[in-house]
Amino acid sequence: MFSAIKYKSGCLELIDQRLLPLEKKWVTCSDLESVAIAIEDMVVRGAPAIACVAAYGLAMDAFLSNTTNWEDYRSDFIKNCERLKKTRPTAVNLFNLISDAKNFLDSFEDKIPMSKVKTDLEKWADGFFDNDLETCRAIGEVGLSIAGEKKISILTHCNAGSLATAGYGTALGVIRSLHAVGQLNYVFVDETRPYMQGTRLTAFELIEEGIPFSLQVDSAAASTLASGHVDWVVVGADRIASNGDTANKIGTYALAILAKYHGVAFYVAAPVSTFDFNARTGEDIPIEQRPAEELTSFGGHPIAAPGTEVINPSFDVTPAELITGIITEEGVIRAPYPDHIATLME
Amino acid sequence: MFSAIKYKSGCLELIDQRLLPLEKKWVTCSDLESVAIAIEDMVVRGAPAIACVAAYGLAMDAFLSNTTNWEDYRSDFIKNCERLKKTRPTAVNLFNLISDAKNFLDSFEDKIPMSKVKTDLEKWADGFFDNDLETCRAIGEVGLSIAGEKKISILTHCNAGSLATAGYGTALGVIRSLHAVGQLNYVFVDETRPYMQGTRLTAFELIEEGIPFSLQVDSAAASTLASGHVDWVVVGADRIASNGDTANKIGTYALAILAKYHGVAFYVAAPVSTFDFNARTGEDIPIEQRPAEELTSFGGHPIAAPGTEVINPSFDVTPAELITGIITEEGVIRAPYPDHIATLME
Repeated sequence: MFSAIKYKSGCLELIDQRLLPLEKKWVTCSDLESVAIAIEDMVVRGAPAIACVAAYGLAMDAFLSNTTNWEDYRSDFIKNCERLKKTRPTAVNLFNLISDAKNFLDSFEDKIPMSKVKTDLEKWADGFFDNDLETCRAIGEVGLSIAGEKKISILTHCNAGSLATAGYGTALGVIRSLHAVGQLNYVFVDETRPYMQGTRLTAFELIEEGIPFSLQVDSAAASTLASGHVDWVVVGADRIASNGDTANKIGTYALAILAKYHGVAFYVAAPVSTFDFNARTGEDIPIEQRPAEELTSFGGHPIAAPGTEVINPSFDVTPAELITGIITEEGVIRAPYPDHIATLME
Repeated sequence: MFSAIKYKSGCLELIDQRLLPLEKKWVTCSDLESVAIAIEDMVVRGAPAIACVAAYGLAMDAFLSNTTNWEDYRSDFIKNCERLKKTRPTAVNLFNLISDAKNFLDSFEDKIPMSKVKTDLEKWADGFFDNDLETCRAIGEVGLSIAGEKKISILTHCNAGSLATAGYGTALGVIRSLHAVGQLNYVFVDETRPYMQGTRLTAFELIEEGIPFSLQVDSAAASTLASGHVDWVVVGADRIASNGDTANKIGTYALAILAKYHGVAFYVAAPVSTFDFNARTGEDIPIEQRPAEELTSFGGHPIAAPGTEVINPSFDVTPAELITGIITEEGVIRAPYPDHIATLME
């Protein structure tokens, strides 16, 4: 199973997901700013993966620092956290990670030597990464536990796979777990405009696993659902509000409406770290607008007439009432969402 | 207003719509086979435009023929009709045109000289073209007639514009007519994967007309509809069954479901020649499957991992119950569709 993130002793390497699957080029990040730019420019994407990379970015910067104690490094650390928070606004895992890092380091004495900070931060980042991988495996198991006797066919959108996480994936974790025990029938993959995460990343992961699937344009999902060949729609999430409203890749909201219309179950698969207990509803979730060029050009070549205006929201919000269940590592959360989500908050 | 089709004395020129808007290259068709290939390869597309090109293709072949009378040419003519019928299966205007051509020529005496056949076929093709243009203008007027006091904002999919017809367009005809009298507020244009007719053609036509619009990925239509900024969804059609079920560009069915969910009117704009009175329901409409490469590559460059399987239906069928009305040159057809559509059949 492919991981897109490698870290060791101040050296953070990311596979450039923009070039996959045709080119496997590793990018080395050698300072915090290059990590922030890699997130902004989508060298790495996927809510859990972004958080893992941010954790390693913080560890790397500390590792490479020449200061001798925590007191002198603290302001750099705070600056690094603030820089990372400005990269992408929608996925909450990043913000949860940074708040976790701050809490962790707040416990340090001022005079603690940097060698100790370095070791502790690396352990913390490794722990975060390993925990994300375990969490994804647990999500897969929970997904498997709600499948009945019948083999399941799944329609998915974007890439909520190994590449979007430390490994294994969330939505793709459910698919992997079903496949591992012979409970998976078939996967339908939305290409996922404008970034083509379905075509470039999900298709690539499924081929590597030998899982049977077909790729389709996003707008073909309705006729695929009408065909009766889909049992579950399963997608990832970038942020889930306290009432269950879920921000995920643009197109998810459409899929949820289409699934409801066709009587197909619609599941979100996401770790508990994706919940934003401060967001009351989806209206509290900021939606990132991406550059017009993602629609008006392809591979650097213009395709639209000059002067074309663009709306390019990277995410949309699916209201909780369209969601059959949220598959987390702690079990499946179902309606009434506000009550059940509140129990996760501890 | 831009027309994509030019014919004069055996010379048929088509603008290569695959290269628009960045390159305006005219392709000359010098025999019937090159016309058929231009339709198959989507040099020209759009149900009414395909029928116009087929009409001129038949006229051109007769014009260039060396035979001296209709009796000797008749079998060539029949062969040409059969060849054109094999180009694209979904749009019915082509089949209606060919059946019209056959009826027209059946009235010819065997000994009629080819000079007369040539003149009559050219007149017939010109008449068909001019009639399509007039029909589009009439559709625009009918669309305008159902707008109230309030300025209308429209979401459209694919290109049902000048380029898809003899000129003026069907869905875009409605948009043009509203705009001409100051009744249009704004247009939202789906990019329309995989062929990008929205990005390449509709955006181009709207810029030429100075009509304000934004381009969006197809899967963003749901959040645009949720924003409350859309009054009507208006699309074209490739074939309408006797019960009102409508085949149109892939993604139309999804849009119709999304419009219903958001309480937005969903209109089909199409000439009466788009009705297939032999198709009882949408199930009788053949849906063209297009090559996998339309999804796995872009501009000739591969983007998906080798071995990626693809489902690529070019069209889908929107059931009549999701359609608010069908805007034709003879007025707006509404439910109960079977009764109202039957009155068109004469």
